[in-house]
Amino acid sequence: MTTETFPTTPRTTPHRKRDRVSYQRATAAAIIDEALYCHLGFVVDGEPRVLPTLHARIDDTLYLHGSTGSGPMLAARGAGLRVCVTVTHLDALVLARSWTHHSVNYRSVVVHGVAHLVTNEDEKWRALAALVDKVGNGRSADSRPPTPKELAEVAVLAITLREASVKARLGGAADDEEDLALPYWAGVIPLRLTPGRPQPDKGVRVPVPAYLPASDCDARPPADARVTAGPDSG
Amino acid sequence: MTTETFPTTPRTTPHRKRDRVSYQRATAAAIIDEALYCHLGFVVDGEPRVLPTLHARIDDTLYLHGSTGSGPMLAARGAGLRVCVTVTHLDALVLARSWTHHSVNYRSVVVHGVAHLVTNEDEKWRALAALVDKVGNGRSADSRPPTPKELAEVAVLAITLREASVKARLGGAADDEEDLALPYWAGVIPLRLTPGRPQPDKGVRVPVPAYLPASDCDARPPADARVTAGPDSG
Repeated sequence: MTTETFPTTPRTTPHRKRDRVSYQRATAAAIIDEALYCHLGFVVDGEPRVLPTLHARIDDTLYLHGSTGSGPMLAARGAGLRVCVTVTHLDALVLARSWTHHSVNYRSVVVHGVAHLVTNEDEKWRALAALVDKVGNGRSADSRPPTPKELAEVAVLAITLREASVKARLGGAADDEEDLALPYWAGVIPLRLTPGRPQPDKGVRVPVPAYLPASDCDARPPADARVTAGPDSG
Repeated sequence: MTTETFPTTPRTTPHRKRDRVSYQRATAAAIIDEALYCHLGFVVDGEPRVLPTLHARIDDTLYLHGSTGSGPMLAARGAGLRVCVTVTHLDALVLARSWTHHSVNYRSVVVHGVAHLVTNEDEKWRALAALVDKVGNGRSADSRPPTPKELAEVAVLAITLREASVKARLGGAADDEEDLALPYWAGVIPLRLTPGRPQPDKGVRVPVPAYLPASDCDARPPADARVTAGPDSG
């Protein structure tokens, strides 16, 4: 059984703004699970690389999706690849009366660890199911699972969640007292990654599954969704 | 005058899916400019670090916001810090009839370079103005500029855009022919980072500036925005 917090290490101790940092496993898990993608960092010949990729968490393991031929997947063979995986939600723009106090509200998790290629077929299957279920809980049971050949062609990296930190900013503008009377608008503009109206593929005869995210903007779907919205319009 | 494309280098040549990669400067600039934040990768004692941060582009220079005391800013003193900066937009979930062809539509730019601390005060001022103007064009003229002390307390990194690649996926599900008759929903769910209704700070008497992003969901503002929406409600 794991403890409720990650241990603090030199890598996860910030140089500044320590009040924004925490080490709660449950908080980190919630941020990771809500995110649809992450940024994978690794080192090649002493140089940094950062690539966006898809992830899913099962208990204390973070799985990353890849191809058997991609750089980090090849590098992770054998002893594994040292990685830093970062997940970020941008929650709001924060406008202050002064330039200096302009900011953003966000939640991020930085994970440090060693990524290993998943070689066990059962584990790989479970990781892929979790990746597919990120789009909606139940999707993996409502689509065709991989053939043995397809399973062999995909690569999955596993990172045990042992060392991580959460950083977040919440709240409004933090202007200096003497700036409060300045005639500038200040406040918060919330931001959300919003699903638009589902656009069915040509020939799809079944309704939009209930497990998919509901559009937040039903009254005003994105312009690019209007043309093809509705079953069989493609 | 710069050329229209970035040169291809070993670092920017992908191992796979080369048809998704391009090197157009204008495309990279548009993706960078649309993004409100980026992920900064660098190496510390041979280990990768990836941190979210704010950026702004002016011509062929990418500026990153930081504090004078933060790790990468300290490391960038002197000869500079080798970095990889990645910007990603997640544009859609792509659901296929098979697990294997589930995907996402996205646009990303990966920049390789050496980051230097901006020491010239005029350049630092222009970079900060560009960072403030990311929230809305004109914001820097409609808020209080930094005092000399404030200017000294913020750090800005500059990276010349010399080596970068663009990667993108567009389009719908790419199911195998023999899967098209399977009874599963397939298609695209568009995603957008959507601004909610502006929440004014306590005491703000001026209207919401026209340069701020208009809410895409006026009919249904986010639940957390309803309480404080409207001037002076805080």
